[in-house]
Amino acid sequence: MRNVKIIGYGNYLPNNVVEFDGEKRYRCNGSETQLEMAVKAAIKALEKSKLKINDIDCIVSASAVTMQPIPCNAALIHEQIAKGTNIPAMDINTTCTSFVTALDTMSYLIEAGRYKNVLIISSDVASEGLNEEQKESYTLFSDGASAFVISKSEDCNQGIVGSLIHTYSEGVHATEIRGGGTLKTAMKYKPEDKADYTFDMKGKPILSLCVKKLPEMFKEFEEKYKVSLKDIDLVIPHQASRALPFIMQILKIDEKKYVNKVSEYGNMVSVSIPYMLCDLLEKGKIKKGNKVLLCGTAAGLTCNILLLNI
Amino acid sequence: MRNVKIIGYGNYLPNNVVEFDGEKRYRCNGSETQLEMAVKAAIKALEKSKLKINDIDCIVSASAVTMQPIPCNAALIHEQIAKGTNIPAMDINTTCTSFVTALDTMSYLIEAGRYKNVLIISSDVASEGLNEEQKESYTLFSDGASAFVISKSEDCNQGIVGSLIHTYSEGVHATEIRGGGTLKTAMKYKPEDKADYTFDMKGKPILSLCVKKLPEMFKEFEEKYKVSLKDIDLVIPHQASRALPFIMQILKIDEKKYVNKVSEYGNMVSVSIPYMLCDLLEKGKIKKGNKVLLCGTAAGLTCNILLLNI
Repeated sequence: MRNVKIIGYGNYLPNNVVEFDGEKRYRCNGSETQLEMAVKAAIKALEKSKLKINDIDCIVSASAVTMQPIPCNAALIHEQIAKGTNIPAMDINTTCTSFVTALDTMSYLIEAGRYKNVLIISSDVASEGLNEEQKESYTLFSDGASAFVISKSEDCNQGIVGSLIHTYSEGVHATEIRGGGTLKTAMKYKPEDKADYTFDMKGKPILSLCVKKLPEMFKEFEEKYKVSLKDIDLVIPHQASRALPFIMQILKIDEKKYVNKVSEYGNMVSVSIPYMLCDLLEKGKIKKGNKVLLCGTAAGLTCNILLLNI
Repeated sequence: MRNVKIIGYGNYLPNNVVEFDGEKRYRCNGSETQLEMAVKAAIKALEKSKLKINDIDCIVSASAVTMQPIPCNAALIHEQIAKGTNIPAMDINTTCTSFVTALDTMSYLIEAGRYKNVLIISSDVASEGLNEEQKESYTLFSDGASAFVISKSEDCNQGIVGSLIHTYSEGVHATEIRGGGTLKTAMKYKPEDKADYTFDMKGKPILSLCVKKLPEMFKEFEEKYKVSLKDIDLVIPHQASRALPFIMQILKIDEKKYVNKVSEYGNMVSVSIPYMLCDLLEKGKIKKGNKVLLCGTAAGLTCNILLLNI
């Protein structure tokens, strides 16, 4: 158990709403940026925590994509909320599960006393990189941001019970954007190569890899940390796709026990998990003592499971 | 003290060599990629460690720039060296000091027993993003890769004595690539905007910020960890620029005590620090018991200091 607690949280959705088959999606549409959303969520989380920026010991960006190739996202956020301070700014990235990986990783630094209060921000703007030719993913994503302030807890029953990250790179090309990094640079962009610069999702292979790998990973988690899914109050899975109920059924997670808001928000990339967690905390539906399992699949294929005693 | 040790290391330089004013620079020139260099360094480090890939508990990419917007670099490296395993793959990024931040961060997870052996890989291909109009930076950079296997040490005198990261975002726009992320996407690229998609370095403002901030940060480090720069055997600074001797003089670090290979290799972005560390380990110039200080400035402006008892 790594004794950490959530002391602040905040969500942000862009103003612009689009609809596909009666389902709402939130999209920046060029009027808001990944950075602006990150800053708005971070300020909300700070306000909720009642801390000042100077009380924060580390700013971590946990988003899937970068705002600029250089510097890292956290430095750009730092300029907006922490300019004039010397608070460290760093990025942690496992695509859609970046928030869980950042929470997982930074909990060790909090536990060891390196940092007391860590601000973790996820912000993604999927709408900048969708391919209208791929209807499934084109209609699936929302933009948004979510931020949390995580702090040391003195309560020995509060914190991270256990966590597991696995990467199965058989699936690395099943969800990707090939162009825009160094392997195919922005300066090589041509309109006829648009498919390489937008999100490419091969739904079926990724789903079959999940079906193959997730049950054994959940079993490993239960055995390693001597917990049973039955004892968990709530599961917050990454809102990856409309196949969520199918995956949850395979994992034998009762539909009353997990959050499924895909029809309301779609897939918010790295933001889905923290957004749902923040939303339920704001509504009072998650309370101190609750056992909440954060889990999800990310491009990679990377899978995370993390059990949090709130 | 976080008890970790280096059990494997490997460097890789691209084959192509260019010269500017008699100084060599190593550049991929389109014939090698950031991914290929990362893989070559990783394999060398693994061989040196005498471990098999299945002995590695986590693969961390610690590079400044991304190979693809999605997924993270570590997942792409995973496919080349760890496909079929479930080893977690994640990216940690503070631009030029990413290796130091990754070593610093992951040492807590090693210390806590989460992972035993961690493979950290830095690989950068600056030559893909230089602006020929900016002669200083155009002639400064080399491409390359460096990888380390870090493991738990049972020797209570071996490991990380202390570390400090500070970000001073007054300097966030002094070294940057503005275009290619979500703030100005690859698909918006036009040849006339090339300056926005290549590295923009404002040498003087960043140097004056370093002069202002680094002495107080080094003083803080010495006081916090009760060490004196005099007791350190070797300083490996990021090979940021030809101004390195000027900065070292301000920090009162004797020229015999620090590594200055800027004229031989230039600035290798995230690779400079691990490359120099690996090179000196390979040549037997760093030995067990040596106190080695890794330090550097990165876009952000982020500054790292980390003291390693080898």
